[in-house]
Amino acid sequence: MILETALRLFRERGYTETTMRAVAKEAGVAVGNAYYYFDSKEHLIQGFYDRTQAAHRAAAEVVFANEKDFAARLRGALHAGIDVNQPYHSFAATFFKTAAEPTSPLSPFSQESSPAREAAIAIFRDAVDGSSAKLDPELRKELPELLWLGWMGVVLFWVYDRSPDQRRTRRLIDGVVPLIDRLVGLSRLRVLRPALRQILALLDTIRRED
Amino acid sequence: MILETALRLFRERGYTETTMRAVAKEAGVAVGNAYYYFDSKEHLIQGFYDRTQAAHRAAAEVVFANEKDFAARLRGALHAGIDVNQPYHSFAATFFKTAAEPTSPLSPFSQESSPAREAAIAIFRDAVDGSSAKLDPELRKELPELLWLGWMGVVLFWVYDRSPDQRRTRRLIDGVVPLIDRLVGLSRLRVLRPALRQILALLDTIRRED
Repeated sequence: MILETALRLFRERGYTETTMRAVAKEAGVAVGNAYYYFDSKEHLIQGFYDRTQAAHRAAAEVVFANEKDFAARLRGALHAGIDVNQPYHSFAATFFKTAAEPTSPLSPFSQESSPAREAAIAIFRDAVDGSSAKLDPELRKELPELLWLGWMGVVLFWVYDRSPDQRRTRRLIDGVVPLIDRLVGLSRLRVLRPALRQILALLDTIRRED
Repeated sequence: MILETALRLFRERGYTETTMRAVAKEAGVAVGNAYYYFDSKEHLIQGFYDRTQAAHRAAAEVVFANEKDFAARLRGALHAGIDVNQPYHSFAATFFKTAAEPTSPLSPFSQESSPAREAAIAIFRDAVDGSSAKLDPELRKELPELLWLGWMGVVLFWVYDRSPDQRRTRRLIDGVVPLIDRLVGLSRLRVLRPALRQILALLDTIRRED
């Protein structure tokens, strides 16, 4: 209930204007009580991440239960992700500048966000592994993280998307899925193996911290 | 001189804390005088964009004058872009959350940034057109904008890059250029034509405003 109240206030007043004190008051609990469950506003947002994460997984699993086709599973997972975030689109636009700050613990790339990030990557791993797609074995290992990076790109596009009901984002998903499906299919072609190796090496470069 | 002063204050105090009044005072000019040249703080940043843009072009042209190889030209253009932005890395991290706000006129995708964006795309057009690379004609037309989108990705990575001298960004450039070079070379393969068509169609989807 504290989380629900916080999300309502974030939507109504914006992230910066919403204090823990105001959240506690609106939720009808003592401030100390609110702090007992959430150490700070950042923790409320991590709670929000966890909740949309769980909703995303549940919605994706409905698709996964009925589809073996890789493209259909991926499309379902991406649209499900937008579905669960849709009520927060206006909040996301105001909140984005906080999460996008490189040093923010709320950045999707931060140490603090790593449980939510791993959970999100796991959705894409299920999309791949439960599918009938035939893949180069090394690509199979790395594809879930590549898809998650692509998903972050879709979320970025969605935050910026000012079209009615963010329909440009829906079109982007519908356009990008057949392309990924085709490239994944081509990944076993001999002529493309060097390019594939380069992509996987690049992923290592991105990951190296030093 | 007003612009130089503003950039120094932005670096020292951050974007939000720097007022036009403070810029005028530090520059030793009347406030009205500062406003004569720059309507607002946003215009100072557009001035900054224009200046780094011109420096980027000048540095890239040095490479272009001596290289016909596409990969070498692209690598030179990307490293030149990082070189000219390097002194502003700490400022970029604090300023990023302003520019990243979807409705900000300072966003690289905004209407207001369109002259700077077109000038940046033109650098990548020169990198392509002055090279000896053999390209599918449709790809040749669209590649400069695709490369600019990739460049925006590199800049995003650079803003987040906390490694010494942002060397991870340098490694990213050195890793991604041979990959792009290879993919561009493969673009004329018959087996890849449908994938290429899909990529170009996707670019249209992204561009459509409605």
